[in-house]
Amino acid sequence: MSRGLRVWQDMEKEQETLRAWKERVARELDRVVAFWLEHSHDQEQGGFFTCLGRDGRVYDDLKYVWLQGRQGLRAHRPPSHGGEFLLRYAQVAPPAKKCAFVLTRDGRPVKVQRTIFSECFYTMAMNELWRVTGDARYQSEAMEMMDQIVSWVREDPSGLGRPQLPGAPASESMAVPMMLLNLVEQLGEADEELAGISAELGDWCAQRILQHVQRGGQAVLENVSEDGEELSGCLGRHQNPGHALEAGWFLLRYAIRRGDAKLQAHVIDKFLLLPFHSGWDPEHGGLFYFQDADGLCPTQLEWAMKLWWPHSEAMIAFLMGYSETGDPALLRIFYQVAEYTFRRFRDPEYGEWFGYLNRDGKVALTIKGGPFKGCFHVPRCLAMCEEMLNDLLSRLAPASALSARPPPAGPARPGAE
Amino acid sequence: MSRGLRVWQDMEKEQETLRAWKERVARELDRVVAFWLEHSHDQEQGGFFTCLGRDGRVYDDLKYVWLQGRQGLRAHRPPSHGGEFLLRYAQVAPPAKKCAFVLTRDGRPVKVQRTIFSECFYTMAMNELWRVTGDARYQSEAMEMMDQIVSWVREDPSGLGRPQLPGAPASESMAVPMMLLNLVEQLGEADEELAGISAELGDWCAQRILQHVQRGGQAVLENVSEDGEELSGCLGRHQNPGHALEAGWFLLRYAIRRGDAKLQAHVIDKFLLLPFHSGWDPEHGGLFYFQDADGLCPTQLEWAMKLWWPHSEAMIAFLMGYSETGDPALLRIFYQVAEYTFRRFRDPEYGEWFGYLNRDGKVALTIKGGPFKGCFHVPRCLAMCEEMLNDLLSRLAPASALSARPPPAGPARPGAE
Repeated sequence: MSRGLRVWQDMEKEQETLRAWKERVARELDRVVAFWLEHSHDQEQGGFFTCLGRDGRVYDDLKYVWLQGRQGLRAHRPPSHGGEFLLRYAQVAPPAKKCAFVLTRDGRPVKVQRTIFSECFYTMAMNELWRVTGDARYQSEAMEMMDQIVSWVREDPSGLGRPQLPGAPASESMAVPMMLLNLVEQLGEADEELAGISAELGDWCAQRILQHVQRGGQAVLENVSEDGEELSGCLGRHQNPGHALEAGWFLLRYAIRRGDAKLQAHVIDKFLLLPFHSGWDPEHGGLFYFQDADGLCPTQLEWAMKLWWPHSEAMIAFLMGYSETGDPALLRIFYQVAEYTFRRFRDPEYGEWFGYLNRDGKVALTIKGGPFKGCFHVPRCLAMCEEMLNDLLSRLAPASALSARPPPAGPARPGAE
Repeated sequence: MSRGLRVWQDMEKEQETLRAWKERVARELDRVVAFWLEHSHDQEQGGFFTCLGRDGRVYDDLKYVWLQGRQGLRAHRPPSHGGEFLLRYAQVAPPAKKCAFVLTRDGRPVKVQRTIFSECFYTMAMNELWRVTGDARYQSEAMEMMDQIVSWVREDPSGLGRPQLPGAPASESMAVPMMLLNLVEQLGEADEELAGISAELGDWCAQRILQHVQRGGQAVLENVSEDGEELSGCLGRHQNPGHALEAGWFLLRYAIRRGDAKLQAHVIDKFLLLPFHSGWDPEHGGLFYFQDADGLCPTQLEWAMKLWWPHSEAMIAFLMGYSETGDPALLRIFYQVAEYTFRRFRDPEYGEWFGYLNRDGKVALTIKGGPFKGCFHVPRCLAMCEEMLNDLLSRLAPASALSARPPPAGPARPGAE
């Protein structure tokens, strides 16, 4: 068989596989969205139920704010359903901007975390609602909250309520600059003026995330010192492969927008391939939840469990990496992760994905939603993958147009040998 | 065979089994104590390392205060080794009594919990040190801290630093009255005057614990409302079988001291048999860590894991129950739990027990010590079981004295048929 024919057949096969995945992903997105639409809306009191059992039944009517905010991001439902609820109830003691972590069904605060995350998801939801409704109240809320978050992170964290203790090292969790970078990107998308103003903030976030590559480029560490050094003990050695992969695609988008090819290659190497290869369980497949950079046993009981979100993030990261570089090794990893994910996390019976598997891939928790799992990672992953797969297929379309008639075989085509 | 001979043979067999367990337990206690003696002492800076790997190596030099206090309870080492360290460093901002949850190796506070537990373990350690050394500083520290704890629990919790939020129900975790009852017992043991004064407090604790029996006596719930009603949602349905069993033997000792046979029977029924039967995994054996009273899936990722301490507590509870009642059903459960525990948690290679198994009984974390596991539950269990087994054997001794010559068989002994 000529090389030309082989290349052509490989391309055909490649397209078929991509097309099959595109269809699988699109169908799955519909099913997932339908699950949340059917089960999560609180028609009486507004907002979303997030504690849903395997079949969608509400097992607790508490409303977790991260997920209220995140579900507010999905444009698949009446957009103000969750927005008004958040606007009215999320802030614990207005005019102070601190938000609750969880609310009662009727909006009374139950718990407050001493971090910035509830506030970040609140901001994202408000910004999204502004885009969809055009209602300026939402955007002004988003901008005010964003200012507060930036001030907590870069100027004075005392409003978060964490005591400063003499034995606690001044450390940075990678989650903070990641979250901020994500926020900056979203707010900038719909507002060019803001995109300009926040470029400096985006650069700062990217630099802070990049500081988490440690040990001469051999490990991404979840926590580093304020000046970018490794911390001692378990805190310093802590690794979260899913988080590194998520940071990976945030940074990849940042590098793409800046047209920075060198950064792009660095990100693929350090935030995609490195955490994938060290974090993938060689025995049972799937990504470990936590690891220790020295290979010691983590102290978190759930370290070896397989969670849905690191797998969603890995799918996005590797498909994005492939879309940008065309490197078939990245596509192979996308297929490997996607196969595992669809086989293990999907629930063909009731829809949505299980969130928590034992190390061996068996379902450990049958819930579909809970304090940290809602209508967010799965639909985000599926929607982004569908878009990237569509885009890849349309770029390959010229080859596809030839499919009715194979290209001439043999040495007639120059360079085909 | 005559009934007399059968009874006698059964008693012989029973004694042999008890004696074999006594020896197993005593040997294991020696090995466990040797592990901590060899690996946990910080000879340079005082206090105890608690983060020990499988072979005893220190994988983090942080010092967790619960375990500093708890190890201070074991009289197997120089008693002031941990005591001076605690006395000097545990309190975060003296003269306020709040203690750290974890300290750096040299005693600087890293984290403070907004609960009473660090302070309770501090109090127990100080009291124990006073008993061993006679140094009055220790006892005065214990008494001052005890007053503070009682005031936080019964009068004003605001010093603990938890914000009161309008959506958070006024709830009581069973851990609080349990911990206090344990403390009252220990302080009363060595001080008769104190035992009198604290009797009211002991009664109060026992009543509060008993309120956690809910649903017409069909479930022990970990959290109830301040006035003893079931709370809504996951919080209200949350069950912790190991905690119920631990509360069980605290209450059993309380009932024994008061000579309250009715309470004793109630405790055996509700805090021993009920949590054992609902909490024992019928498929793989071992006690589940968490359960939901409606049989729904808990939201804690580790709910189905098997932890060392519920099994230690169950061994104590059932052996105590048998010692008091002679009910062979309780002894059979002691054997069942002890067999599982010795087979699954013991590490014959390096000593001490593993702390965390997967549902199927395989070791999930190889660490021997960590933020919540130290020199406490295992030696307490083994020391108490050894003492109870010794006591049982000495009570059976008259029968044993006959063993050189079986009792006469046949109808010669009246009532033997």
